[in-house]
Amino acid sequence: MSEHSAVVKLAMELMARPSITPEDAGCQQLMAERLAPLGFVIESMFFEDTLNLWARKGSGKPLFCFAGHTDVVPPGPEQQWHTPPFEPTLIDGTLYGRGAADMKGSLAAMIVATERFLSRNPQLTGDIAFLITSDEEGPFINGTKRVIETLEARQEKIRWCVVGEPSSSRQVGDVIKNGRRGSLSGTLLVKGVQGHVAYPQLADNPVHKAAAALAELAAQEWDHGNAFFPATSFQISNIHAGSGTTNVIPGELQVLFNFRFSTEVTADQLQQQVYAILDKHALNYQLDWILNGEPFLTQSGTLLESAVHAVQQVQGFAPRLETSGGTSDGRFIAPTGAEVIELGPCNATIHKVNECVLAADLDRLAEMYEQILELSLT
Amino acid sequence: MSEHSAVVKLAMELMARPSITPEDAGCQQLMAERLAPLGFVIESMFFEDTLNLWARKGSGKPLFCFAGHTDVVPPGPEQQWHTPPFEPTLIDGTLYGRGAADMKGSLAAMIVATERFLSRNPQLTGDIAFLITSDEEGPFINGTKRVIETLEARQEKIRWCVVGEPSSSRQVGDVIKNGRRGSLSGTLLVKGVQGHVAYPQLADNPVHKAAAALAELAAQEWDHGNAFFPATSFQISNIHAGSGTTNVIPGELQVLFNFRFSTEVTADQLQQQVYAILDKHALNYQLDWILNGEPFLTQSGTLLESAVHAVQQVQGFAPRLETSGGTSDGRFIAPTGAEVIELGPCNATIHKVNECVLAADLDRLAEMYEQILELSLT
Ligand SMILES: [Zn+2]
Ligand SMILES: [Zn+2]
Repeated sequence: MSEHSAVVKLAMELMARPSITPEDAGCQQLMAERLAPLGFVIESMFFEDTLNLWARKGSGKPLFCFAGHTDVVPPGPEQQWHTPPFEPTLIDGTLYGRGAADMKGSLAAMIVATERFLSRNPQLTGDIAFLITSDEEGPFINGTKRVIETLEARQEKIRWCVVGEPSSSRQVGDVIKNGRRGSLSGTLLVKGVQGHVAYPQLADNPVHKAAAALAELAAQEWDHGNAFFPATSFQISNIHAGSGTTNVIPGELQVLFNFRFSTEVTADQLQQQVYAILDKHALNYQLDWILNGEPFLTQSGTLLESAVHAVQQVQGFAPRLETSGGTSDGRFIAPTGAEVIELGPCNATIHKVNECVLAADLDRLAEMYEQILELSLT
Repeated sequence: MSEHSAVVKLAMELMARPSITPEDAGCQQLMAERLAPLGFVIESMFFEDTLNLWARKGSGKPLFCFAGHTDVVPPGPEQQWHTPPFEPTLIDGTLYGRGAADMKGSLAAMIVATERFLSRNPQLTGDIAFLITSDEEGPFINGTKRVIETLEARQEKIRWCVVGEPSSSRQVGDVIKNGRRGSLSGTLLVKGVQGHVAYPQLADNPVHKAAAALAELAAQEWDHGNAFFPATSFQISNIHAGSGTTNVIPGELQVLFNFRFSTEVTADQLQQQVYAILDKHALNYQLDWILNGEPFLTQSGTLLESAVHAVQQVQGFAPRLETSGGTSDGRFIAPTGAEVIELGPCNATIHKVNECVLAADLDRLAEMYEQILELSLT
């Protein structure tokens, strides 16, 4: 019979549950059954279609929190999977299945790390909590954001937070994300006057009016980044005008764009700069904004030092600190004042077919998590 | 009983036939039945879905041709019509119905003018022909263009051509179109590299690359026009990139544009200038062109002088000569070397609901056409 480690065994149990966003498929129940015997108080927070788990042990201070998600992205074309996506399979030391790396492996590693840590440290100088959602991969409206709002309302503060996202590149622990860029989206509607191409003097082409402004936005340097962040980036994701008819000057131009921004600028400053450029070109426009997340940075402190030390101890090398890549639920936790880092498995196969992780990496990750608990809470 | 003039009666008979492009609905048959007794040789040219009529009297030289179309645009929202679109109705001297002005009124006026002219002038110094299509309002592929190709192949040359399009503005005859701008269309595909907005360094945004080039194209002065033509105009009719997803940098940008150009530039020169601007901005692109029509101008000559004189005689004022507005089938006829002008009813209601024309205007138009025949052919 199998000789799977405790971490791999639990990861496989979680991966067998087809928890495609926003489904949890019993994953949080399974986690709760492991945490309750350790003294965790289990709280299910159900918002709209989303199940969230808030499990906390103790009511002292400071609070160490592990944040993660049970939901996974859809498996994609099933015929391209060598093994069924929801039948976790271990082949030559590699664990295959949807969620192996993003992020049921991390969930299992932290549960086992907590069990081991508590069995060796019955007396703590702080508390431990799990903040688990089932909508990280989805619209992230009823997940971590609302759990944090609930905690804030009752003044429950997280001091240190490890997010289990797959941060690693080639070897587990080689990258720790100690921050993320902000994300600001704009929907721009430039208004002109529709007309016939044969009578341009009676029309006002919004594409012509906007082109120079868009060129200027595309060429603009918003900042130079800093030691922790790459330069702020502006990208147009969509541009549309015209209904396909070739003899009509369109009356409107729609442009969707997105900023990924560093801590060198604020969302407000970016908005003012965009307004200035659009106004300079005398456009008649409407502009709606969505601030998807402020940038955050955990520059130093107990948590980051503990994590760097833990990687060094388990792997024998120091992790790189990065803030690149997409957003994560860390953006909802950091604004409360918590130190937030992300540490998890290698991300080469996430969201792809044949998602996988080295079984040994999950064991190493559990060791790192246990070390971080040790260094932070004892 | 009705006291309708011969012109109005024939116009109503034509208008009662619902000849929505490319349908002819028996209109050409009706015209042929009027022309055959006058000695016209009737030739039906059926190309694909399009019926065309080539009716010619005589085989001498020079050839005077009336060009027009029997098809009409769809009536649009029928409940907005005060009278049924295909039940021509005369109310207080105004004739209502689809095609009244564009251009069944002109067809009737020219048939009656020809009848009257021939009855008074049995001996001619030239020939008369009718070139009638049923796809002027449509894709204009199997209409006038192919009839002209057929005539060219058998070396049948038109010397003078009156196109019956509704050229007039406020009073019938106040505007004669003595030319039209050229029309050149481009389909531009700018290629980039698709990617995620969080990793702009791995992508190449075609919208960003193209924006400055489009701004330059929009700002460019192509010429200053001349005494007969307004300045060449460039218009972007469609621009599209992105599939709606807001976190993806699009891989392609599609732009449709159109030139309306004067006789100061050639289509080839415009193309070279566009290439130069795109290349200057180092775009990776594909560009396909359609030359919808070369510009043409009938600056002087027997036909134009006859038409100006005819308007003067019937209306007591001189017509303005213009080359503005959309394309017409004149663009297919002029390149053969013919003198081409357009003279027809007022165009205020064409392609709209409640299309109409003054009954008296149709009678005046028949008088003008008869005068033109007189002045050209006797
Ligand atoms: Zn994830
Ligand atoms: Zn017409």
